[in-house]
Formats: sequence, C-alpha cells, structure tokens
Amino acid sequence: MRKKGCLTLEDARILIEGAERKAADMKAPKSIAVADDGGHLIAFHRMDGANRTSIDIAINKAFTSACSHRATLDYHKLAAPGEPGFGLHMTNQGRLIIFGGGFPVGVDGEVVGGIGLSSGPVDEDLAVGEAALEYYQQRLRRG
Amino acid sequence: MRKKGCLTLEDARILIEGAERKAADMKAPKSIAVADDGGHLIAFHRMDGANRTSIDIAINKAFTSACSHRATLDYHKLAAPGEPGFGLHMTNQGRLIIFGGGFPVGVDGEVVGGIGLSSGPVDEDLAVGEAALEYYQQRLRRG
Amino acid sequence: MRKKGCLTLEDARILIEGAERKAADMKAPKSIAVADDGGHLIAFHRMDGANRTSIDIAINKAFTSACSHRATLDYHKLAAPGEPGFGLHMTNQGRLIIFGGGFPVGVDGEVVGGIGLSSGPVDEDLAVGEAALEYYQQRLRRG
Amino acid sequence: MRKKGCLTLEDARILIEGAERKAADMKAPKSIAVADDGGHLIAFHRMDGANRTSIDIAINKAFTSACSHRATLDYHKLAAPGEPGFGLHMTNQGRLIIFGGGFPVGVDGEVVGGIGLSSGPVDEDLAVGEAALEYYQQRLRRG
Repeated sequence: MRKKGCLTLEDARILIEGAERKAADMKAPKSIAVADDGGHLIAFHRMDGANRTSIDIAINKAFTSACSHRATLDYHKLAAPGEPGFGLHMTNQGRLIIFGGGFPVGVDGEVVGGIGLSSGPVDEDLAVGEAALEYYQQRLRRG
Repeated sequence: MRKKGCLTLEDARILIEGAERKAADMKAPKSIAVADDGGHLIAFHRMDGANRTSIDIAINKAFTSACSHRATLDYHKLAAPGEPGFGLHMTNQGRLIIFGGGFPVGVDGEVVGGIGLSSGPVDEDLAVGEAALEYYQQRLRRG
Repeated sequence: MRKKGCLTLEDARILIEGAERKAADMKAPKSIAVADDGGHLIAFHRMDGANRTSIDIAINKAFTSACSHRATLDYHKLAAPGEPGFGLHMTNQGRLIIFGGGFPVGVDGEVVGGIGLSSGPVDEDLAVGEAALEYYQQRLRRG
Repeated sequence: MRKKGCLTLEDARILIEGAERKAADMKAPKSIAVADDGGHLIAFHRMDGANRTSIDIAINKAFTSACSHRATLDYHKLAAPGEPGFGLHMTNQGRLIIFGGGFPVGVDGEVVGGIGLSSGPVDEDLAVGEAALEYYQQRLRRG
C-alpha cells in the first residue's frame, strides 16, 4: 500500500480557470478537459466559440497525458511515420492523441492527472496549457 | 433558415451550480453534464466521490435528452422488455440512455440542450436534476 | 448470373415524398431513410421538428429491413426476452433494430431495399411507412 | 443564451439541388450530405452511380465541416505526416475527415451547418461543393 496524490474537482476548477484566463487574453476560445490519474474526466468546459470537434480531442488529450505521463507533443515525433512508435495513434480505441495540447499534471514529482486543450492551432493549445499549469502551481504554493 | 436559442458556457455553469448545491445538500456527489441542442458537451463536473462509471452515463443522459427532447425516465417504460420501444438502448451507438437522470433544458418552450446526472440511485439523480432546472429558471427570470 | 431489381435515387425520392405527405397530414415530423438491397443509404430526409436521435434509428431500420427482408416490427416478438431470437439487437454492431418502423421495399415479389421511419411513437412510424410504400406502389403502377 | 441560425430541410434541399445540378453537368455522380450546426444529418442523396463507400465519407465530411467550421481540405495540409495536426484523422471516432470535399455552410458570417460530397476524385468533390454553396447563396439573396 502506498498513498498517492489525487486531483479534486477544486483542483480541476483551478486548472480550468487558469486556462480560461489565458485563452480569453489570447481571444482563442478552447475546449478544456481535466482528467484524474486514471484518465477519467473530472471537469470540462467548452468556451463559447470553441469548435464541437474539439470536445473529443481535449478529453482524449487529457486522457493520453494522464495515462502515459507524457505531453502529447512528445508523441508528435515518436509516433511519426518511420519512427519507432508509428501506429500509436491507432491504439487505445483511437484515444491516444499524438499532437500537442495534452499535458500531465504533476504535484511533488508525481503525475496525478492530465489536462487537454483543443480548438484552433496547436501552438495556441500549448500556450494555454502551459499557462494553466503555471496558474495551478502558483495556487498550490500559495496554499 | 430559422433562429433558435443556444446555451452558452455561462448557462451551463448555472445549471451545474444548481445541481452541485442540491447534491451537496443531499450528500450525494454526482457527475453533472450539460450538452447543447446537438447533444455536444458544453460543461461537465464530477463531484468528489462520484463514481468513474458515472462520467459516461451523465454525458450520455445529457446527449439523449438534448437530442430526443425527452426526459430519459420516459424511456424507462417505453423501452422496457415487451414495450414498443424495447431495443432503443442499443441505438445511437449505445448512447441513448433509458433510465432516469437526463432532462431536456427548455427556454421559452424550445429545447435548447440537456442535463444529465449520474452516480448513485436514480431517484437522487431525478431530485438533483429537477433542482438544477429550477435554479436555472429562477436565474433566467431574474435576468 | 441473374438480374435483380435495383432502387434508384428517383425511387427513393418517391418513397420519401409519400412518407412526407403522410407525416405532414399527421403533424408527425419524421426522419425518413431509404436503403438499397445491401442496406446502404440512398436518401435521407429529416423533417423539421424530428428528433436528432431519430437519424441513427431511421437509417438502421432501413438497413435492417433491407438486409433481413423483414419488417423490424417482426423482431419485436422474435427478439424479446425469453424468445428464440433474444440478443439479435446486439448483432450487426447494434444496427439491427427490433422495434417497428422499418419495412422491406418489394417490387415484383423481390426485396430491393428498405425504408425506415423514426421520431415519436412506433404506431406513427408504422402508419407513415405503410403510406410511403402504398404511394410508391401506386406510382409504379402508373409507370 | 444567445440566438443562432438554424438550417431547415428546405435549406438542405436547395443545397443538394445545387450539388446535383453541377454533378449532373460534370457526369460525376456524388453522395451529397447536409448536416446541421451540430453535425447531425438533415438530408442525404446518393446519385445513381456514386459508390457505396462514399456514403460514410460524405456524411462525415458534412459532420467535420459543420463541427470544426473548416473546409476538410484545410486539414489535408494541417494533418499530414510531419505537420502539427498529424493524428487528427483518428479523433472524433474516426469521423474527422482530412481530405477535400466538406464545406461549412455559412449565413450572415455564422456557420450553420456543413455539406459533404464524395465518390470519385477530390477535385470533382470540390467543384460540386462550391457550386452547391453558390447556388444556395443565390437562392438566399433572391429570398
């Protein structure tokens, strides 16, 4: 038996709030998903103007990062045609996302979940996700 | 072309807030999903303590009620063995839920989306869903 | 080698027109699907006011009747719990519909396709489907 | 709550009529699908001679463009191997189409649905889709 960190709905709300602030600043409405360490959805917000195809993608980016402990951007290279991991995007019932916008959520060096951003260009998703994680870490430090 | 009402993220937040208040009062943590009129998820909160199997159910209850314009409880009778609609639970890729806890969200006599509640007994889901809809209508009236 | 009858888009249009007339008379907007003898969709109309969950159901009723050469209502008894065909609704990737509203389309004693109706009560679907088939047969006789 | 435009069956009929005229001129029979803003099918016609594999593709092109607000041709570059969005074709249960032939339908600067064309070469699909959209806009202007 061991203890593990466990994201609460309150943690997910803070992560989403951080994402929404950055996305609003950038005028880049996003679908934002937060999953627990089992990849199961805790919370999801689709900002007004985000595409309906982004729902599935944001949820599965959060799933992918929570369960693989990797940023989905890492797979962009690893799972490209000709690379050792080509084909990964077909696994996990098509839920393993191999482009940027999913991030593991880590606390005290342990992965406790994932966050996924989608709708619009990948570089936007990356900026919004990084801002969300930083906002969350600041809030944790403040206690 | 005609015009129709369209739920925003702010509408979904209010519906979820109404559900969370009632669920907290009842000490009955729920997965709460709000979908637009096409059944696409706008927002989702899983309260701490709600089951992981309730995620899919809440999301699909919201989908079912948004797209069929019915409370999912209506299907409990209609789709029971021996009844004319037995088999409905297999349609729509298994997303059509035939037990209580999904409600259409109506504004000015028009269905504009759905809300789904899950985790724990159906009668709890019904009580929480009804409270959420009432809370939302009160907020609309206050403007 | 043999020759077989083959529904054209024009045939499908006539079937749909017959269904739309009856459905309009009954003020019962329907999703209406016509499939070829392989169960593949030829034409589909969702009348204004028909539910979004009825799309999948109408298409799969047409598929079921085209491919099984049976009215889907026949399965209501045959595939009921305790009956020899219980479980049929799980086959064909969930596309085999076991409640009323799908009809084979026959010409000269040969099944050449199927029509499926959905949205609202099964008895409405039956009335609209029967009217569509009769309208089509009348048009065939008139040549 | 906000108001948004909503395609009717009559709108879908006009879009399909425009596509059928162009396709007939080009002797290039097509599957033609029109979806609402949630990606749900409103109407579908498979012209005599169009392939059975084109049914799924046309329907999903309409879904993709309705829900992503993009022409599917945009994804051809964005989701190619080595590009930032490689892997997109696996999302949304494989329904997100990354080659040409799907177009958003816009009215007054707002996306209200999608149209998808399939069967035969992509450049044909593009020509037929563009003609359909132009035909529809002309009809709207005439009122």
